[in-house]
Amino acid sequence: VTVSSLSADAVELGQYRHYMQKEIFEQPQALGNTLEMIAGGNTISPQVFGAHAGDVLGATRRVLIIACGTSFHAGLVARYWLESIAGIPCAVEIASEYRYRVSVADPETLVVVISQSGETADTLAALKHAKQLGMDKTLAICNVPESAIVRETALRFITRAGPEIGVASTKAFTTQLAALALLTLALAKINDRLTADDENTYLTALRHLPVAVTKVLELEPEIEQWAQRFASKQHALFLGRGRHWPIAMEGALKLKEISYIHAESYAAGELKHGPLALVDRDMPVIAVAPADELLEKLKSNLQEVRARGGELYVFADAGSEIPESDGVHILHMPEHYGMLSPVLHVIPLQLLSYHAALVKGTDVDKPRNLAKSVTVE
Amino acid sequence: VTVSSLSADAVELGQYRHYMQKEIFEQPQALGNTLEMIAGGNTISPQVFGAHAGDVLGATRRVLIIACGTSFHAGLVARYWLESIAGIPCAVEIASEYRYRVSVADPETLVVVISQSGETADTLAALKHAKQLGMDKTLAICNVPESAIVRETALRFITRAGPEIGVASTKAFTTQLAALALLTLALAKINDRLTADDENTYLTALRHLPVAVTKVLELEPEIEQWAQRFASKQHALFLGRGRHWPIAMEGALKLKEISYIHAESYAAGELKHGPLALVDRDMPVIAVAPADELLEKLKSNLQEVRARGGELYVFADAGSEIPESDGVHILHMPEHYGMLSPVLHVIPLQLLSYHAALVKGTDVDKPRNLAKSVTVE
Repeated sequence: VTVSSLSADAVELGQYRHYMQKEIFEQPQALGNTLEMIAGGNTISPQVFGAHAGDVLGATRRVLIIACGTSFHAGLVARYWLESIAGIPCAVEIASEYRYRVSVADPETLVVVISQSGETADTLAALKHAKQLGMDKTLAICNVPESAIVRETALRFITRAGPEIGVASTKAFTTQLAALALLTLALAKINDRLTADDENTYLTALRHLPVAVTKVLELEPEIEQWAQRFASKQHALFLGRGRHWPIAMEGALKLKEISYIHAESYAAGELKHGPLALVDRDMPVIAVAPADELLEKLKSNLQEVRARGGELYVFADAGSEIPESDGVHILHMPEHYGMLSPVLHVIPLQLLSYHAALVKGTDVDKPRNLAKSVTVE
Repeated sequence: VTVSSLSADAVELGQYRHYMQKEIFEQPQALGNTLEMIAGGNTISPQVFGAHAGDVLGATRRVLIIACGTSFHAGLVARYWLESIAGIPCAVEIASEYRYRVSVADPETLVVVISQSGETADTLAALKHAKQLGMDKTLAICNVPESAIVRETALRFITRAGPEIGVASTKAFTTQLAALALLTLALAKINDRLTADDENTYLTALRHLPVAVTKVLELEPEIEQWAQRFASKQHALFLGRGRHWPIAMEGALKLKEISYIHAESYAAGELKHGPLALVDRDMPVIAVAPADELLEKLKSNLQEVRARGGELYVFADAGSEIPESDGVHILHMPEHYGMLSPVLHVIPLQLLSYHAALVKGTDVDKPRNLAKSVTVE
């Protein structure tokens, strides 16, 4: 007999209509708990990944991230972080593909597996496959400390999101991103790519995340209005660039999972290579548009969409100067958050899919055909 | 004044209704022309990529393929080939992403750019970006010998597909695959990963491709019937695994481009991580199902689709034993083609999109919103 250590709080709905809504709103606390170890100091230590992490990370020349679904999207964000901040080449692969293909093993590669439950069958099998190929530098990022995947890796980071009950993952995703941000900083520091100033700046931004997320959550009423317009649609196209392309992917996946709207995502630069043919007034286009170095490029993509009659829903932030007009709806998030901006920008997309599903009357926490943990192939 | 060397044949429709149809049917000849240099002998020489190719390929430790749209899908297929046959790690990246992100440069990496026109703005800019980062081992795979991209690379391979006029790329794609297969064999040979027997087997299979493609093209009437059922659909889901996952991607892109049906592709193993929620009787599912080592896994994915009411269109080949039944349509391609099977399996998907577009009455050769060469960002 295993006695559950979950508190009643963790599994009761309280003021919320669904677990998914509750879990979206728990993100400030989940992030605060996950990042507790950096609350006090101004340095990041490899030891947050395990006692031997200094040695393992010090010998790491490349990173291979393996995951499925939403966790795969977290890995894709981390690729942008790891290469630009830590200067470490990174590949990200879908577990069901990696485990069955003949790939080239590299013992200097850190294999990072990401899974909320730590029981995802393909991810576990892919991890074992990598180990059999001689890749013994392994790190699990999981939300369940006693899970199968965690028992198989040299290093581990347990996100402290608390139990996630809604099938569509929300707080697990943002806490995975927090873990991957810490990994990026730890590797950057080991590789002498992080000045003390930069370290301090990143750690301050991480510590401030719960507050920043709380402010984004206050936009719920506005997003709820967008969802009313949205829910009648059959299709949607999500666009992003750079580290926000995976956020567009995650936004599309959320909408698919619980509202059954056929949402697809594209790197905005690929628009002219095909998906633009789909754009008409029945295909709303959602853009993740932070005020980063790619905004001008994105805006030019959005003009193409508008010129073809596509209705635009733009998730901007402080500094993204995009004028609202007929057919162009803008939601301004209060802060621009630099490298960590993907953590904030996924929140309104979670809320959009939640409220679109509410309008459609689907079973939000248990969408048709899906299970919470995919423990079979 | 530039005098065009194109023959009248090359730009006249002849017996065909559209350039796209003509170009689909020109694939046996395009492949034969592209592979002419291996017609006589039983060895592959690096020199098919340029006079200095032996040195460059001999010093290549990794491959980075950069492209957009359909060419990107050719690169994704090559990744499976390069890692499994040549034992060379390979990454494939969308040009508009690569050029703007901070990545880790590696002078031992061969940068392969793929573009039908050789003028794709993002691909050209990404190539220049890679060169500025110090990556001077470069190879262009293009269909136009005097194009901008070809002038920028150390090595080049000109596909001899002939002029491609239809906006939706077909014969350019299969000839790019042929070029990438040759690159795989050249690298495998240089790295002592290719026995003389294997080399002979692969070259024989390549030489036989025009005949094999011709036999697949004979399936047009059957595919035309499928297209009749298809054209009324709003959505479609394309599934594949391994080296046929990019073929599923390409099939979905073709359908999007010219029939305006919202087709999306997934690695079949990801089905349970989200897209299965979309599956109902209004969402036909197309499966690329050759008789390879992943077929049993794919079949189990297809059973999940069928159990949720999704109608299945399965592109099988010799040896894929999948029973036809209510809601499960099977098209049997005559040969199973091993590693080169992606070259064959894309053909019926090209035909499916072409005939679906005919039924819908779209402007097949000039689909709305798209240009043939994307020469601006």
